[in-house]
Amino acid sequence: MTEEQLSSYHPTLPPTTEEDRFSWLRLLRSRKVGPATFRRLLREHGSAQNALTALPEMARAAGINGYEICPPGVIEAELKAAKAANARLLCLGSADFPDALNDLSDAPPMLWAIGDVSLLRKPCIAMVGARNCSSLGARMARGLAADLGKQGYVVVSGLARGIDTSAHMAALDTGTVAVMAGGVDVIYPAENTDLARNIAQSGLRVSEQPMGVTPQARHFPRRNRIISGLARAVVVVEAAAKSGSLITARDALDQGREVLAVPGHPFDARAAGCNLLIRDGATLVRSAEDVVEALPQQQADLFEAPPATVSAEAAPSGAALHGEILARLGPSPIAEDQLIRDIAATAGEIGPALVDLELDGRIQRQPGGLLSLTA
Amino acid sequence: MTEEQLSSYHPTLPPTTEEDRFSWLRLLRSRKVGPATFRRLLREHGSAQNALTALPEMARAAGINGYEICPPGVIEAELKAAKAANARLLCLGSADFPDALNDLSDAPPMLWAIGDVSLLRKPCIAMVGARNCSSLGARMARGLAADLGKQGYVVVSGLARGIDTSAHMAALDTGTVAVMAGGVDVIYPAENTDLARNIAQSGLRVSEQPMGVTPQARHFPRRNRIISGLARAVVVVEAAAKSGSLITARDALDQGREVLAVPGHPFDARAAGCNLLIRDGATLVRSAEDVVEALPQQQADLFEAPPATVSAEAAPSGAALHGEILARLGPSPIAEDQLIRDIAATAGEIGPALVDLELDGRIQRQPGGLLSLTA
Repeated sequence: MTEEQLSSYHPTLPPTTEEDRFSWLRLLRSRKVGPATFRRLLREHGSAQNALTALPEMARAAGINGYEICPPGVIEAELKAAKAANARLLCLGSADFPDALNDLSDAPPMLWAIGDVSLLRKPCIAMVGARNCSSLGARMARGLAADLGKQGYVVVSGLARGIDTSAHMAALDTGTVAVMAGGVDVIYPAENTDLARNIAQSGLRVSEQPMGVTPQARHFPRRNRIISGLARAVVVVEAAAKSGSLITARDALDQGREVLAVPGHPFDARAAGCNLLIRDGATLVRSAEDVVEALPQQQADLFEAPPATVSAEAAPSGAALHGEILARLGPSPIAEDQLIRDIAATAGEIGPALVDLELDGRIQRQPGGLLSLTA
Repeated sequence: MTEEQLSSYHPTLPPTTEEDRFSWLRLLRSRKVGPATFRRLLREHGSAQNALTALPEMARAAGINGYEICPPGVIEAELKAAKAANARLLCLGSADFPDALNDLSDAPPMLWAIGDVSLLRKPCIAMVGARNCSSLGARMARGLAADLGKQGYVVVSGLARGIDTSAHMAALDTGTVAVMAGGVDVIYPAENTDLARNIAQSGLRVSEQPMGVTPQARHFPRRNRIISGLARAVVVVEAAAKSGSLITARDALDQGREVLAVPGHPFDARAAGCNLLIRDGATLVRSAEDVVEALPQQQADLFEAPPATVSAEAAPSGAALHGEILARLGPSPIAEDQLIRDIAATAGEIGPALVDLELDGRIQRQPGGLLSLTA
């Protein structure tokens, strides 16, 4: 590390004032600022307010005409809605932000939460599976969730029909977290309205989306990474081949989480996804004991560390590497690390160039630190 | 290796004359001579005839009164029955003896065979499972056996009810081997009489038991080691916890065979054994492709080696170590290798002492080279 890089070290702390929280939310809600870009901007500009000030010029330099940061009125409305819904904002680096998310490269910088946020301090197990599950699958989910709850684990799921619903319901008494795909105040599907209310009362609902957002297809995979990210392990209870649960399982592996699956007979198509996972190395689950046994024993580093501050790395503004970066990226995502090695420049040089290109809409960040050209 | 040990090297060849075969069979049918003892006696005495001559004196020295080797009339009757049943004797080290058994420490020195012995030269897959299988299990067994047969694999099983029956029937056209628990001419269960006849015609029946022996409980685990021993992989199609199929699976692992299992839902007790195996590392099977894919790629050493002769190792007659051996053995089996290390004597010294103790009924040999005190 050079002297210049060392001098740029400035750990970014979570917001401490209302004004600072306002700026964080405003930065995150600004166009083309996703979780990874948010972290990077904060790192490079020292504060959300500084980043907001710099954004329009960065956009202009990247050739984006008429870029505007999120208007303050939007944030005011969101905060008002949150107050009405009794929602609380959890910010990356704060004591109430779930530690488990700290080590994710695309962790949401902020989560809205309704309910008992202390559940996020307990060990969490995610349970996911088919919406159109069999009665056997639903029964299995109920049994697992109830037994895991009795053993002190919080059950995390997505409030969807089927397996999610069964898991939440069975864990209502012991603690359950629903990660919503849309706004934390927007209940979907409607048939789970009562369940969602019960979870807000005895459990916890969280979402990274703005208040009031109706969930759309693209929100679900984003949401799934939070389900697995919050958990020590992800149990897939029943899943067909090529189902969303398998994507969650893959995300979980990328995040270093244990992946477990409940087997089924090969003639049962609803078990095909689970059997595939087991064949590929997931732990076979017959009971809650199987789940607990599979949990990594050494969780100290990951889950008992003090709340992390936003990691600060050297990021001097380098020469424009845009052309070289674009030449090396394609529609298939590659790891940012790989890109840095290929280009033989430092992360600190490449970082700002990537932000520019992302703001410019020419490259896309994907979960797991992957980059690709925008299609 | 000392000079004396080198000078004792004399590879024992399979029997080449009728007289020699007679002696082999007679030695094997003599009381207290199991497969491991048979090999050892042959190694130590150079021929079955020599071993037969030495046996009574060895027994007397071991304190067994009135020990008699198998009377020749018994062997004559067995050979006559074999001729009537059109059974052929396959001897360890002969070209027609299955190579796959050569590397088993407790390989049967001889097998009776009725049918097409050339099937033993083809790659074999064992399929085992519950006698009281579900219709789903039977269907799975049929599908797997038929598909494996189409791909050139011979299906080995035990002619039992349930999974075995389904597997044999589906593989009749492509090649199937039934390993019988009793004599190769004694069909059990009676309901499989037609199937057994069909197997004799288009497949192969084998047994290590004397002709005419009615199968008894103790024969089944012994038989199972031959099923797994003949095969490159053992597929457990449906098995409850604590079932015989799990013992076969464990034997297969001891023999270095691949173990695979068809999963089922945890609520289905008939899948409990299979799920346990998968949890413990067995490969999950959904289809014949999964089986073929799991087969070890490098089979040359194991299956394409020329027929082995009975391995010859130095075995000078040593001092009586009986007391020390008995003191170190208990009811729980330990490996012979371990015993030799503990006693700090050579294998050549300990070997004859073990034969004495075994003939004396004081110690027992178990599959996998394990020894224990007789209970």
